Amino acid sequence: MSEEMNQQLTAAGNEMSASFLAAKKRSDETLAKLKANPSQFTMLTGDRPTGRLHLGHFFGSIRERVAMQNLGVNTNIIIADYQVITDRDTTEHIGDNVLNLVLDYMAAGIDPEKTMMFTHSAVPAENQLMLPFLSLVTEAELHRNPTVKSEMESSGHALTGLLLTYPVHQACDILFCKANVVPIGKDNLPHVEITRTIARRFNERYSPKNPIFPEPAAILSEAPEIPGLDGRKMSKSYGNSIMLGATAEETAKLIKKSKTDSDRNITFDPVNRPEVSALLTTAGLVTGRDPAEIAAEIGNGGGGALKAYVTKSVNEFLAPHRERRAELARDMDTIRDILHDGNARANAIANETLDQVRDAMGMSYDR
Amino acid sequence: MSEEMNQQLTAAGNEMSASFLAAKKRSDETLAKLKANPSQFTMLTGDRPTGRLHLGHFFGSIRERVAMQNLGVNTNIIIADYQVITDRDTTEHIGDNVLNLVLDYMAAGIDPEKTMMFTHSAVPAENQLMLPFLSLVTEAELHRNPTVKSEMESSGHALTGLLLTYPVHQACDILFCKANVVPIGKDNLPHVEITRTIARRFNERYSPKNPIFPEPAAILSEAPEIPGLDGRKMSKSYGNSIMLGATAEETAKLIKKSKTDSDRNITFDPVNRPEVSALLTTAGLVTGRDPAEIAAEIGNGGGGALKAYVTKSVNEFLAPHRERRAELARDMDTIRDILHDGNARANAIANETLDQVRDAMGMSYDR
Repeated sequence: MSEEMNQQLTAAGNEMSASFLAAKKRSDETLAKLKANPSQFTMLTGDRPTGRLHLGHFFGSIRERVAMQNLGVNTNIIIADYQVITDRDTTEHIGDNVLNLVLDYMAAGIDPEKTMMFTHSAVPAENQLMLPFLSLVTEAELHRNPTVKSEMESSGHALTGLLLTYPVHQACDILFCKANVVPIGKDNLPHVEITRTIARRFNERYSPKNPIFPEPAAILSEAPEIPGLDGRKMSKSYGNSIMLGATAEETAKLIKKSKTDSDRNITFDPVNRPEVSALLTTAGLVTGRDPAEIAAEIGNGGGGALKAYVTKSVNEFLAPHRERRAELARDMDTIRDILHDGNARANAIANETLDQVRDAMGMSYDR
Repeated sequence: MSEEMNQQLTAAGNEMSASFLAAKKRSDETLAKLKANPSQFTMLTGDRPTGRLHLGHFFGSIRERVAMQNLGVNTNIIIADYQVITDRDTTEHIGDNVLNLVLDYMAAGIDPEKTMMFTHSAVPAENQLMLPFLSLVTEAELHRNPTVKSEMESSGHALTGLLLTYPVHQACDILFCKANVVPIGKDNLPHVEITRTIARRFNERYSPKNPIFPEPAAILSEAPEIPGLDGRKMSKSYGNSIMLGATAEETAKLIKKSKTDSDRNITFDPVNRPEVSALLTTAGLVTGRDPAEIAAEIGNGGGGALKAYVTKSVNEFLAPHRERRAELARDMDTIRDILHDGNARANAIANETLDQVRDAMGMSYDR
């Protein structure tokens, strides 16, 4: 009995890692095609406006988006404002968070002429796709989504109807603009899978001769995981994150407060010295240097010298971003106009897609 | 133990019937207020376009809608086309079904100048309300809905995401136009209950000082249950329904085919003679006579005489409806225009409501 269970578990483990490897292989193939023919690709990605962007976002996703935009991919960034209420009872500060996202995107190099930035709450025709799409998945399939489960557990909140169904809403986000590539972390593979399922089922059921939706491919992020200042995952709720929009002084203060250990000799050892190594990783990323080399250079300088180096290198790295950000923030009306234009473009695309969907379903009665 | 269980079951039974009686009392009070002040009330009701309307619909709901319209209630009829795919994999014939609903509504006395008729698939801003509303209910609450359970069981179809969440979509249907009364059969009380819950929670959470949504009251239909020609519930799938739009010949044929029993003496006895009594009930409804009196009049005439009487009285009753219907059907472009106008009005209302919702949630970023 126990042996059988072990075999099953091993089989499940192998399947999991086999499925991840297969996803990675597909991702690499997609990326190669994208680099060869960027204009053939439409990419959608985005953020929940639950706070400000930090260095983890910059290296984990923002930098990659700018690169895709500049490569000539049709780039779309969604500010997923309804995702804020999947596991919260309030939308406090949401307006500030949204506008600050736009500021950070643009300061990082996102060009509103090339990239469509929009909030999904502003695009009714996109949201309407929820209705036909919800009919294409079963409750059992919604429940099988591991990301939904873990998000529910970590939120400590009852499972709302919106949290249960938000992967379907993500399918609306991706498919309304017919995105065929979606850059994600591996935790989000199930969301892309359900999007592919919905696209395939819609096409098969309502438009078999003339498929309306692409089955988007996932591009797995190559970015290293960036630890927070305490060695844990960088997260707003841990207070361990260097915000892109913070001042140099705020950044210095935050780094100064961060824990190190009693060994004055600085070494790069993520397993045994997580806090010291997190600081070294951060300095390595922003300088492009090897963290071990930085450690050797600091040597017996202790936590103080390490923190001074990290503060200086982070602030130097972020200075141009922060300068552009401050410049842009002087004219928030223009930022609002940019969002308004992005929303208008998203609406035009969504209306066209919804018309195709209605035609395919025989639901265009009055024209 | 057993006694305790009995007590619990009795308590549950009492609670059920107490809650129904309370609902009936509230319904009567609402109806009295509505009759006193019709212009203070906005009513929403509608149909799934899964087929044509029959005599059961006429006496069960259509007649009541016309009366409310003529009383001066702000009357809205939704053709709930996305509800077709809650438990089906196809939208076959949906266009025909939708336009035929409009024909029957108008033939029965619905005036498009007074009543807004629309399809929810044509109103994106209404459908967008799904997103905030789904965040206001838990999955457990969705599961508790007894109507969803019984519909899933009777459909023999896996529980789709849309079937699970359609009571939330009905809340969108009802609340986008701020309906404060909803005429329903008692099976649909849970839907009105979830709509009231959503309205209350939205107001409390996002707009406590200036509630956006009314908590609509249910008006329980007073109409008697109309049996199909075989004594079972009138249903398209049983083939036991007299269609409003059928010809007199088709109606005669259907009634001729219906079963009676071997006793030539016609009596009104729904328990022991369901088929004969169903025919008598039908004749009673369309003539306004007492079924027992009709039975006495036919006496020993047998099934043949009974069927002749039913055929004649049904066809006489429906003749004016069918004549108006045929007249209207001569110009389907006008029917499409009427639906187009209804949809345009619904969109104007939905856009206004959605703007209020966005403002309340702090989601109006770009204006």
